[in-house]
Amino acid sequence: MATVRQYDGDNAIERWRHCDDTTATVRYDYRIVAPMAEERLQEFYDEISEDLTRCVQFWLTHSQDDKYGPGRCGWAGFLMKFAKDASTGRCYLILTRDGKSIKMQRTIFSECFYTMAMSEMAKATKQELYKTEAIQMMDRLIHWVREDDTDIRQGRPPLAGEARSESLAVPMMLLCVTHELQTLDPSLCARYRDIQEWSVQKALSHVQREGTVILENVSTSGTELPGSLGRLMIPGHAIEAGWFLLRYAKQNGQDELAQKAIDQFMNGPFARGWDDECGGLYYFLDADRYSPVQLEWNMKMWWVHTETMVAFLMAYQHTRDGDHLHTFARVYDYCCSKVNNFVI
Amino acid sequence: MATVRQYDGDNAIERWRHCDDTTATVRYDYRIVAPMAEERLQEFYDEISEDLTRCVQFWLTHSQDDKYGPGRCGWAGFLMKFAKDASTGRCYLILTRDGKSIKMQRTIFSECFYTMAMSEMAKATKQELYKTEAIQMMDRLIHWVREDDTDIRQGRPPLAGEARSESLAVPMMLLCVTHELQTLDPSLCARYRDIQEWSVQKALSHVQREGTVILENVSTSGTELPGSLGRLMIPGHAIEAGWFLLRYAKQNGQDELAQKAIDQFMNGPFARGWDDECGGLYYFLDADRYSPVQLEWNMKMWWVHTETMVAFLMAYQHTRDGDHLHTFARVYDYCCSKVNNFVI
Repeated sequence: MATVRQYDGDNAIERWRHCDDTTATVRYDYRIVAPMAEERLQEFYDEISEDLTRCVQFWLTHSQDDKYGPGRCGWAGFLMKFAKDASTGRCYLILTRDGKSIKMQRTIFSECFYTMAMSEMAKATKQELYKTEAIQMMDRLIHWVREDDTDIRQGRPPLAGEARSESLAVPMMLLCVTHELQTLDPSLCARYRDIQEWSVQKALSHVQREGTVILENVSTSGTELPGSLGRLMIPGHAIEAGWFLLRYAKQNGQDELAQKAIDQFMNGPFARGWDDECGGLYYFLDADRYSPVQLEWNMKMWWVHTETMVAFLMAYQHTRDGDHLHTFARVYDYCCSKVNNFVI
Repeated sequence: MATVRQYDGDNAIERWRHCDDTTATVRYDYRIVAPMAEERLQEFYDEISEDLTRCVQFWLTHSQDDKYGPGRCGWAGFLMKFAKDASTGRCYLILTRDGKSIKMQRTIFSECFYTMAMSEMAKATKQELYKTEAIQMMDRLIHWVREDDTDIRQGRPPLAGEARSESLAVPMMLLCVTHELQTLDPSLCARYRDIQEWSVQKALSHVQREGTVILENVSTSGTELPGSLGRLMIPGHAIEAGWFLLRYAKQNGQDELAQKAIDQFMNGPFARGWDDECGGLYYFLDADRYSPVQLEWNMKMWWVHTETMVAFLMAYQHTRDGDHLHTFARVYDYCCSKVNNFVI
C-alpha cells in the first residue's frame, strides 16, 4: 500500500495504492499536495514493474488450457497445429478451443502475430523448428505485401469502384515483426533491410498536409484519399507507429527519421488526440474536424494509452526533453485515475 | 413556435418549439408545469406530421443528383442500372456516385431494400417493369434464404468451427418486404403466405429462456447459442420485429401472435433496454448482464427510438392500453429533450 506523489494537470497529488493479488485488481485514493518534478521516474519504474509482474502472474495462473493447449499467449504448438490454412499458409484469426477454424480476415495481422509467437518460442526453447517457422511466415508476409495479395484478398478481386487504399497498420506491423526476428537472430538484419526501408517509406507516406497530420489511409501513390476514409486519423496508431520508427531510426543512426518520429508521429497526434475536457486520447478523429463515422470515435481505449506511454518514455529516453516525460506523466496519471474497479 | 405540455418521467413540462426550415433543425425550451394525460395525442400527431413534412421537403430539395440520379431515396433507375451484379442478381451495398461497385455484403439486406425501392416505384409510376423487378428479386431472396445461400456467402463455404447462427433480422426483413409487395398488389398475399408463416416461426424461435428474452442469434434448430453471440440482445431490433409481427397478426386475425408481439417483443425488450438513469434505449445488451463485446453497446441510436415509438403507438392502437401510450410518450419526450442541435 505505497503512498506516492503524482502530477495531474497543474496539481500534484498524493496517492495511495491498494492491490488485491487474488483478483489482479488495483484501487487508488488521492489527496492534493505539492508540485512534482522529474524525481518520479523511480516511482513509475516501481509501479509499472509491480503491475507487469502481477499481470504476468495472473495470466500464467489462469490462461492455460491443459487439455488443448492455448494460443492466446503464444503457446506455439497449438498455433502450428491449427492456425494455418494448409493450402495458402494463411492464419485464422479465431479458432474454437479444440482448434476448428472460425474466422479468417482479409488482412496480414494474424500472420504477423503468428510470426512473433514463433520467434518468441524459438528464443525461449532454442529450437530451430520455431525459428524456421517464423522466418518462413515472414517470407510469405513479404510476398503478400509486396508481390501478390491474392491470398490475402481470399481470391476476391477488387471491385470497380473500390479505392485502393494503404493502411498505416501494414508497414508499422512489418517494422515491428522484423524487429522481433532480429532480436532472435541479429544476423537477420541484412535479410530484412529492404522490407524495413520500404516500411519506413510507406509509413512516412501517411504524413500529409505539410506534416501536420498522420492519415490512417492513403492512396497507393501516397496521396490523400477523398472522403471520410481519407480523413481518418487514429492518434493511438500514429503514436504507436512513432515508437516503432524511433526504435528503427536509433538502431540505424537515422537522426532525421528519429526527429520525424517524435515530432510528426508522437507530438502532433498527441496534441490533436488529447481530450482537454475529460482527459484521455480519442480513438478516431477526422482531419477536417467532422464527426468520424465510427460510433466509438470518442471512446478512450486502454491500448491507445499504453502505446502512448511507451512512445513518450522512449522519446524522453532519446531526447531527455522534460516535455516528453511530462506527457508520459499526464497519460500515466490519467490511466491511474481511471483504473479503479477495472481488472488489469 | 408552438407551446405544448409533455410528460417527462414523473413531471409534466411546458415546451416551446423553435423550427428553422433552412437548416431543417429544431430546438426546444422547457418549464415544469403540471401532470399530463392522454390528451396529448393531437399534439403528437401535429408535431410528428410537421417533422415528417419538413424532413421530406429537406431531402426532396437536397438529395437529388441531376447528373447521375441518386439511389438513396429509391430512384429506381440508378439502382436497376448499377446495383445488381449481372451473374448472381445480388445487389451491392455501396456504389460510387457514377455507379461503380464498392462493397457487397454477405447478407440479404441490400436486396431487401432494392425490392422495396422497386415496389414503391411501381406504386408511384404504375409501370409493370418495376413490379416485375420487385417480384423477381423477392423470388431470389426466398431462394437464397430457404434453398441455397451460396450466392449470399459469395461462394465461401462455412469454416469448420463456425456456429451456424440465424439472425432475427432475416425473418423480420422478409416479413417487412413481403408486406410492402402486398400493398402494391393485394393479390400477392397468397404467393407470400408460405414465406410469411415461415418468417413468423423463425422470428418466434428467438424468444428464449421461457419467454423472458429475445436473443438476436439462435442456432438453426432454434436453441440458444453458446458465448456472447448467443447472449446478444438488441432491444431496438426486437421491438421493431414486434411491430412487424403485430401488423402481420392483425392482418391475419392471429390474436395470440398479436399478444406475443406486444408482450415478448415490445414490453420485455423495452423494460430490459431502457436506461433508468439517463433515459433512452441501449444499443446492445447481454442476456446474462455481462458487458456486451460491442464498444458502442451503451450508446443511444436514433433508429432504435423511432422504431420504439412506432411499435408502442401501434400497440396502443391495438389495445387502447394507456401504458403503451405512456411508453410512447416517454420515448417521444426523451427524443425531444435530446434533439437540440441535431439535424433531423
